[in-house]
Amino acid sequence: MSLDVIPIHLVNTPPDKTGLTGNAQPLLHELAEQVKCLLASGDASAIDLSALPLTPADLDWLKVALGVGEISVTLQASGESTLAETACSGIWWVTHRNEQGAVTSQFIEVAWVPELVKAHPQDVAIGLETLELLIADL
Amino acid sequence: MSLDVIPIHLVNTPPDKTGLTGNAQPLLHELAEQVKCLLASGDASAIDLSALPLTPADLDWLKVALGVGEISVTLQASGESTLAETACSGIWWVTHRNEQGAVTSQFIEVAWVPELVKAHPQDVAIGLETLELLIADL
Repeated sequence: MSLDVIPIHLVNTPPDKTGLTGNAQPLLHELAEQVKCLLASGDASAIDLSALPLTPADLDWLKVALGVGEISVTLQASGESTLAETACSGIWWVTHRNEQGAVTSQFIEVAWVPELVKAHPQDVAIGLETLELLIADL
Repeated sequence: MSLDVIPIHLVNTPPDKTGLTGNAQPLLHELAEQVKCLLASGDASAIDLSALPLTPADLDWLKVALGVGEISVTLQASGESTLAETACSGIWWVTHRNEQGAVTSQFIEVAWVPELVKAHPQDVAIGLETLELLIADL
């Protein structure tokens, strides 16, 4: 499974009085295509929200549109990351924060499970060594 | 990837003054074998803690021994479930609670990612329909 960060080209439109630029709606079309791709091939993908001309109002609109799902993941590693399933299963809202709690980047990931949640073989092998040391000390 | 709930046979020993039965230590050996299996074949497995003669002190001992990892997952579905990575990557402590917050079952799962965290194709297909309705309404 490859994780591609999709480059999205949006117009740099000035926001209206509500702060909306109209740039959030096309992302729903893009997400629908990505979900179709996940279902067809299992290929995961991501949209880097920080790289797009989206206002805070656009991001709020998108978050409300996608809704809240049943699963929420917290990852503590030099700052907290949250990986929240949206009401559209397979679409995850990923927020990375620094140690001071400020948002450093935001992604929407389309995947069976976000890449960061999976244990990696090297880490599992290190964990096994820890466990074997623990057993040796019993 | 298959998820097997491993039957473990432990002696029904009465606890000592600290509440420990000595039944928790053999589980570490079992977990080490399961982690080796995960690394070798990718096969996930689980130990149903509720089905074993373990006291609350045994469970606490096991939890402390395995430590706390970087990832914690919360799942809200007729009661809250928590799926917490232990300090041994690939070993997850899974607790299911009912709507009143009482623990209904506990598992230790050995997997790249716990089964319940993964979006299932049927749910993703339903999510896609929701998304397409949303787009049609724009």
